[in-house]
Amino acid sequence: MLTVYSEKHKLRDAKTELYGGELVAPFECPARAEYILERVQSEKLGEIVPPDDFTLDPITRIHDSQFLHFIENCWQAWQSSGYHGEAIPTVWPSRRMPQQRIPDHVEGKLGYYALAGETSISNGTWEAARASANVALTAQSAILNGAKEAFALCRPPGHHAASDMFGGYCFINNAAVAAQAFIDQGASRVSILDVDFHHGNGTQAIFYDRADVMFCSLHGDPNDAFPHFLGYADETGSGSGEGYNHNYPMGPGTGFKSWGSALDDACQKIRNYAPDALVISLGVDTFENDPISFFKLASDDFKRYGATIGGLNLPTLFIMEGGYAVEEIGINAVNVLQGYEGI
Amino acid sequence: MLTVYSEKHKLRDAKTELYGGELVAPFECPARAEYILERVQSEKLGEIVPPDDFTLDPITRIHDSQFLHFIENCWQAWQSSGYHGEAIPTVWPSRRMPQQRIPDHVEGKLGYYALAGETSISNGTWEAARASANVALTAQSAILNGAKEAFALCRPPGHHAASDMFGGYCFINNAAVAAQAFIDQGASRVSILDVDFHHGNGTQAIFYDRADVMFCSLHGDPNDAFPHFLGYADETGSGSGEGYNHNYPMGPGTGFKSWGSALDDACQKIRNYAPDALVISLGVDTFENDPISFFKLASDDFKRYGATIGGLNLPTLFIMEGGYAVEEIGINAVNVLQGYEGI
Repeated sequence: MLTVYSEKHKLRDAKTELYGGELVAPFECPARAEYILERVQSEKLGEIVPPDDFTLDPITRIHDSQFLHFIENCWQAWQSSGYHGEAIPTVWPSRRMPQQRIPDHVEGKLGYYALAGETSISNGTWEAARASANVALTAQSAILNGAKEAFALCRPPGHHAASDMFGGYCFINNAAVAAQAFIDQGASRVSILDVDFHHGNGTQAIFYDRADVMFCSLHGDPNDAFPHFLGYADETGSGSGEGYNHNYPMGPGTGFKSWGSALDDACQKIRNYAPDALVISLGVDTFENDPISFFKLASDDFKRYGATIGGLNLPTLFIMEGGYAVEEIGINAVNVLQGYEGI
Repeated sequence: MLTVYSEKHKLRDAKTELYGGELVAPFECPARAEYILERVQSEKLGEIVPPDDFTLDPITRIHDSQFLHFIENCWQAWQSSGYHGEAIPTVWPSRRMPQQRIPDHVEGKLGYYALAGETSISNGTWEAARASANVALTAQSAILNGAKEAFALCRPPGHHAASDMFGGYCFINNAAVAAQAFIDQGASRVSILDVDFHHGNGTQAIFYDRADVMFCSLHGDPNDAFPHFLGYADETGSGSGEGYNHNYPMGPGTGFKSWGSALDDACQKIRNYAPDALVISLGVDTFENDPISFFKLASDDFKRYGATIGGLNLPTLFIMEGGYAVEEIGINAVNVLQGYEGI
């Protein structure tokens, strides 16, 4: 399997994450991608190539231009305001507040564009996010050109990012950008299957009213898990997208038996939908020892569910999302890819 | 002038405020109330009495019971979740997310009930907020019983708190609770004049659709200042409250000349409204050396505008709100009260 990887992910190297009322070293850190790359290499998964530059055009198919401009320029504006820490939002358009105004001040802009507060913006964030989107688009392009499957070793991840909101460690929604690229290049239908521990709220929001991209997500029940305010089972799409959004929220302690049943159900929906391509939002924070999640998948389970995905027999683009038990993240991610390949 | 004060404000003693991407010592700190108390004493403003206990009844006239229950129990739930810092929200119902669900997990609940992230909840927060509301209600009661004016030396402040949201250092909206008490005890109309540097978004939201409480606020333009998403000039009320909300947003560097003109305009609106009682949300962060604000009022200006308020010749309840240049906060707050009294 082809892997696309960019060294530029290392530019995303924030020093602070707001967690449990403290500023801690971010769980989403450069070592994550390095562990996965090492495992891809040591397991000889296949060729590893750097990304091409796809410009902003395919990104603006999904994201608001003003939002992208803000992510690009936030760090400079934040520093110019005299703040000493990394850019972390402290105020946002809260419930029942008008939501249409974008304040001039960087503190207001930051809160306007944020959907969560754990994700500091710092120097290099934009460059790394751009490179991550290029990684996804390069892998997508490989499939368009005939590859059966490809692995986009994206970092930072993307599935929490909405059209004009960042958070949950995400800035550009790589899976959504890649799915849209399939559509723009002629696909009639694309499925996105999100197996990250956390609900892919950004991806859901982006495609919620569309029938040409079906979204299925297996995740920690938002009653108990981030992002808390989206990802419930009764969110099934709206307008012409009604019936094309499928959430499988599951509670603390969920192991492979229940999780695998939900996956089987999602795969059956994907089969019925008969998409031209499948995008996997591949988070491996479902692992039993992940430090910020509560599912109980063992490393072997990742190989098993990779095989289930392979059984769909679709052109398949794997996009790296979360997973924070850094020592095992490479093993678990590559287990999915090897399971898919029947290894 | 009677002053009501409770030692219990000292129980609100958070150690961390999220500011500029760092956790700093909170600007809203116990020393604030102590400086004001000392000045009230040294200037011999009048009698100082402790508050009576008014139970939760007058508070639930303004605030949602589930919200109050959360503020009371948040710290214990947060600690039980194993977090090591003070309770600071990291995720909230952001733009276009459904806003009706209250997650079970304390992290979700905290974000649901928060309108900003600078305000840590810690041990003693609830007790101090309750005492602060009792301070306001005791001073309100004094006016009901014939006093022409009274000073509620409230801490924590209240004007950012909405019916079911905390933030901006505020938990219970003391001014709103007191205004409602006037109404419930027979007043036909009450005016709230908010002279704090920051827009009283909570007070506005609480009375936005009502004609029996007119709200006027002079404040830093939300384009440039917290709370950023409310306080614009075109917010004039809704439904039967249309025309009873008046915002005076002003830009960086505003001095007394412009500020005083806005006050004159607000006072004319209050005269026309002819309320039975006047509640002043008294923030003195309009001071030229306030560390987190951008108006340029000098200490003498506070005496001048106190006289303007006195000229309204209304039963007047002063409720302490913000002001963070701690050394001068006592001088400036008491200057307003002395100006009011014609001293």
